[in-house]
Amino acid sequence: MHFTDRLFDAVQKKNSRVVVGLDPRPELLPAAIFNRYQVKSEGTLASVAGAVTEFNANVIEAVADIAVAVKCQSAFYECLGIEGLKAYSRTIQIAREHGLLVIGDVKRNDIGSTAEAYAEAHLGGGPSGFEGTSFQADAVTVNPWLGADGIMPFVERAALCDCGVFVLLRTSNPSSCQLQELVCNGRPVYRHLADLVREWGAKSVGDSGYSLVGAVAGATFPGQLSELRASMPHTPFLVPGYGAQGGGAEDVAGGFDSSGLGAVVNSSRGIIYSFRKEPYSARYGDAAYKDAVRAAAEDMRAELELTLKNR
Amino acid sequence: MHFTDRLFDAVQKKNSRVVVGLDPRPELLPAAIFNRYQVKSEGTLASVAGAVTEFNANVIEAVADIAVAVKCQSAFYECLGIEGLKAYSRTIQIAREHGLLVIGDVKRNDIGSTAEAYAEAHLGGGPSGFEGTSFQADAVTVNPWLGADGIMPFVERAALCDCGVFVLLRTSNPSSCQLQELVCNGRPVYRHLADLVREWGAKSVGDSGYSLVGAVAGATFPGQLSELRASMPHTPFLVPGYGAQGGGAEDVAGGFDSSGLGAVVNSSRGIIYSFRKEPYSARYGDAAYKDAVRAAAEDMRAELELTLKNR
Repeated sequence: MHFTDRLFDAVQKKNSRVVVGLDPRPELLPAAIFNRYQVKSEGTLASVAGAVTEFNANVIEAVADIAVAVKCQSAFYECLGIEGLKAYSRTIQIAREHGLLVIGDVKRNDIGSTAEAYAEAHLGGGPSGFEGTSFQADAVTVNPWLGADGIMPFVERAALCDCGVFVLLRTSNPSSCQLQELVCNGRPVYRHLADLVREWGAKSVGDSGYSLVGAVAGATFPGQLSELRASMPHTPFLVPGYGAQGGGAEDVAGGFDSSGLGAVVNSSRGIIYSFRKEPYSARYGDAAYKDAVRAAAEDMRAELELTLKNR
Repeated sequence: MHFTDRLFDAVQKKNSRVVVGLDPRPELLPAAIFNRYQVKSEGTLASVAGAVTEFNANVIEAVADIAVAVKCQSAFYECLGIEGLKAYSRTIQIAREHGLLVIGDVKRNDIGSTAEAYAEAHLGGGPSGFEGTSFQADAVTVNPWLGADGIMPFVERAALCDCGVFVLLRTSNPSSCQLQELVCNGRPVYRHLADLVREWGAKSVGDSGYSLVGAVAGATFPGQLSELRASMPHTPFLVPGYGAQGGGAEDVAGGFDSSGLGAVVNSSRGIIYSFRKEPYSARYGDAAYKDAVRAAAEDMRAELELTLKNR
């Protein structure tokens, strides 16, 4: 089944547009897990990776019926070396077993056969012809700086395995303007890129009306999000920057179509470390972190639903 | 010792500007290795990764006194899953043991703490405070699409561990023009980026006169390479696209300063699979692939030297 059909079916079934970002950072793990793996005193990268996997498994269990997908930020696994990448692979597997889609936030980019190798590495479980799998995400994020040569190998692979691709169109960090907002022929570079993203995805639109070629569009620029939604009617959006990075439901609303589809919204720290912050820390605290995670995800689901209903 | 001092010391000692790209592709490995690891018939990703590590070790041995660095393209390791990443890590280790610098061609990019995690993952051996290492390259390639927020965490980490960073400034693929050559205020985007790269590296110039913040600048646009050299006197260049991708010594000459320093040139397939192509295949053939690899690297070293002498 086409990636966007799977994605927006899940959105409708769960009445949720929530993507939970699994960005595991050792120093923020719940004390119980942190200590059990002796991360603090005699920690090795292997012990951290073990703690991360256990934490992720519990987060996944807590949000499985509330979120539509998890987004795994590969940087936080790669920095733990081989053991970290085992945790990455295992996390993907656990999420899939719980019926969640998995977005590999890998921001990969290269050209030709190298881009093909990255696509094989991260989409659908690896190269054909050999026993064993690499990493089995349902979609990946990719960086467009190299143009079509760096994107189409991902798109072709994604088409073969019912996966998706989210192109970094407009990121939400302060310095994103340095290249993305340079003005060429009266329009910022990212608007030129928007045309390309539309073109790259034109041949792979699912029954949902959305292409497997999506875009990452930041929530800290809500006006831009509405404009992009209007000019890219077949491009699904992955909207980061909800919660800890500052965006709220009002800010991301522009990313959705009139049916409340067309986008999913990611929150990482705001959900998985909610047990460290008000209002959840007082209500649940460290030991009941699973309940805090579940409550934060449910609140985000409800906020998005309410905002879309009232607009 | 500052990264560019290490790099250009090696260039002067070895009288070489050659970087050997280790882009292992199962179907191109020498038959002897391919068959020993049963890649063909009952191949698993683990067996391919074993074959890749053996091949890389032999290539490294063959070029250790001719090349200044190896460049490992992470895509080709990631697509072999966990076992592939073990091969990546082991290859880096072997290259360092042979006195070669290692460039991790990872093209990573993200912002803030995520970029820090990538930098920890790939530069200098991993996060502090835990036993064990991640990946220990001497330099990495990074993608600039997110602006300074995506680059400075790499630069800061690199400064701490005497490593380097090569920003994808101007790539040599056909579609690189789609974003890189859009014209803003009379100048293409990549020239605006050149100003940023210079600025990002201004505070970290070594005794060599070159900054730890370098740039990847493709050899298929030789005129641009000379212009960039002139406008970025402190930026070391990593020039890809030599050999199999089309550029020759004449095409890359513009990347060097008047002392023949300031750049290193990568060839991947042209060296490591030289045993498959004339003139090396007739002279050496599959079984003597190490000699073919050595001869191809030596020819490239000599071609670059001659061209720089005669200009």
